[in-house]
Amino acid sequence: MNFSSHLLADAVQSFSKLPGIGKKTALRLVLHLLKQDESETTQFTAALNNLRKNIKFCKQCFTMADADICTICSNTSRKQGIICVVENIRDVIAIESTQQFNGVFHVLGGNISPLDGIGPDQLTIEPLINRVLTNEIEELIFALNPTIQGDTTIHYIQRKLQNHSVKITTIARGIAFGGELEYTDEMTLARSLQNRLPVENYVR
Amino acid sequence: MNFSSHLLADAVQSFSKLPGIGKKTALRLVLHLLKQDESETTQFTAALNNLRKNIKFCKQCFTMADADICTICSNTSRKQGIICVVENIRDVIAIESTQQFNGVFHVLGGNISPLDGIGPDQLTIEPLINRVLTNEIEELIFALNPTIQGDTTIHYIQRKLQNHSVKITTIARGIAFGGELEYTDEMTLARSLQNRLPVENYVR
Repeated sequence: MNFSSHLLADAVQSFSKLPGIGKKTALRLVLHLLKQDESETTQFTAALNNLRKNIKFCKQCFTMADADICTICSNTSRKQGIICVVENIRDVIAIESTQQFNGVFHVLGGNISPLDGIGPDQLTIEPLINRVLTNEIEELIFALNPTIQGDTTIHYIQRKLQNHSVKITTIARGIAFGGELEYTDEMTLARSLQNRLPVENYVR
Repeated sequence: MNFSSHLLADAVQSFSKLPGIGKKTALRLVLHLLKQDESETTQFTAALNNLRKNIKFCKQCFTMADADICTICSNTSRKQGIICVVENIRDVIAIESTQQFNGVFHVLGGNISPLDGIGPDQLTIEPLINRVLTNEIEELIFALNPTIQGDTTIHYIQRKLQNHSVKITTIARGIAFGGELEYTDEMTLARSLQNRLPVENYVR
C-alpha cells in the first residue's frame, strides 16, 4: 500500500502487526479512529499504556491483577478452599463468564509437555502444591484441555499430593451441547459412556 | 466477560469499540500486546496519538497529509496536469497500489446525494473547479463508484466546466477480471458492449 502520509502509514503499519489484522483492516480501523473525536484515541492509547505499565500477576493464583492479590482471590464471599486449576488467563475468563463457579483459581501457565521442553519447573506447580499444603484446601478442580499434555499434568500433580487428603476432580468430558453423536470422536464417546450419569443427576 | 483486573477490562473494552472487533478478538489482541516487549505497545500507541494530533488535509487535493501539501501533490515527477477525482482517501490508496497512475488526485469527500442531504457545497467541488480554472489542467479522470450518485456528481462537475477546454474521462466500466459473463448484471453487460474495444487496443 502507498500512502500520501507517513503518519497514516505508520499507524496502519502498527495496527497490522497485531495477529489477524491485515493492511486493509488496519486502514479501516485507523480511518475509524480519525473519524471519532480525538478523546477516543487518547482513551484507547491510555488504556493500553496503562495496562502494559501497571499489570501484575496475582501472587496467589498467577492470574492478571491490578494489585499483588487479584480481585478473585481477595473476594471473601468466594470459597477459598476450592481451587480451579487452569492453563491460562483466557480459561479463567471463560469459566468466570459461566457464572457457575464460586471458588478461586490457579493459573499453571501451560501444561507439562516434554516434547516442547516444558517441565514442571516452568509452570506454577510448586506454588500450587505449597498452596494446598499450607492452606485448608478442600478440592482441586482441574479444568485443563483434554489432551495428553493436560492429562500428564493432572497425573503429575495428583501424585505429588497423594499423601494429602485434598479431593481432586476434573471437569466432565463428554459430548458438547448441540454436538452430534455421529460426528463425535471415539475417545470422547467412549469416555462419555464410561462416565454415564443417572438421569436424575442430569442437569440441563 | 468478567475479568480479574480492571486494567485488562479497560484495554479489552477500548479495543472492542473498534468496528468489527468483538470482545474475544479484543482479548486476543490485548494478550498479544502483553506477550510482546513493552516497546511494542509504546510504539503502537505513539503512532496512533501522533497520527491523531498531527494529521492534516492537503490544501490542494484534500487527501491526508503530514504537511500542508501532500507528498503526491509536491512530487514534481508526477504529472500535475492530470487529476484523478475520487470519493475518499481509501480510493487514493487503492489507485496508488496499482502503480499505474502518475498524475495527482482530488478527494471529493463523497458524492452528490440529495436523499442523504449531501449537496455540492458539502464536497470539495468548488476547490476542484478553481483548481482546473487557475492551473493548466489537461485531463480530469473520474474514478467514482458506478452509482447514480457517482454519475450525478460527474454530470454536475462536467456542466460546471463545459466552457473550459479540459478533457473529462471516467475509468472503464466493464466485466472484472475473473468475473463471469453469466452472472454479470444487465447494466454492466450493456455498458461493456457499448464501450467495446478493438482487440489490438485491449491491454491485459
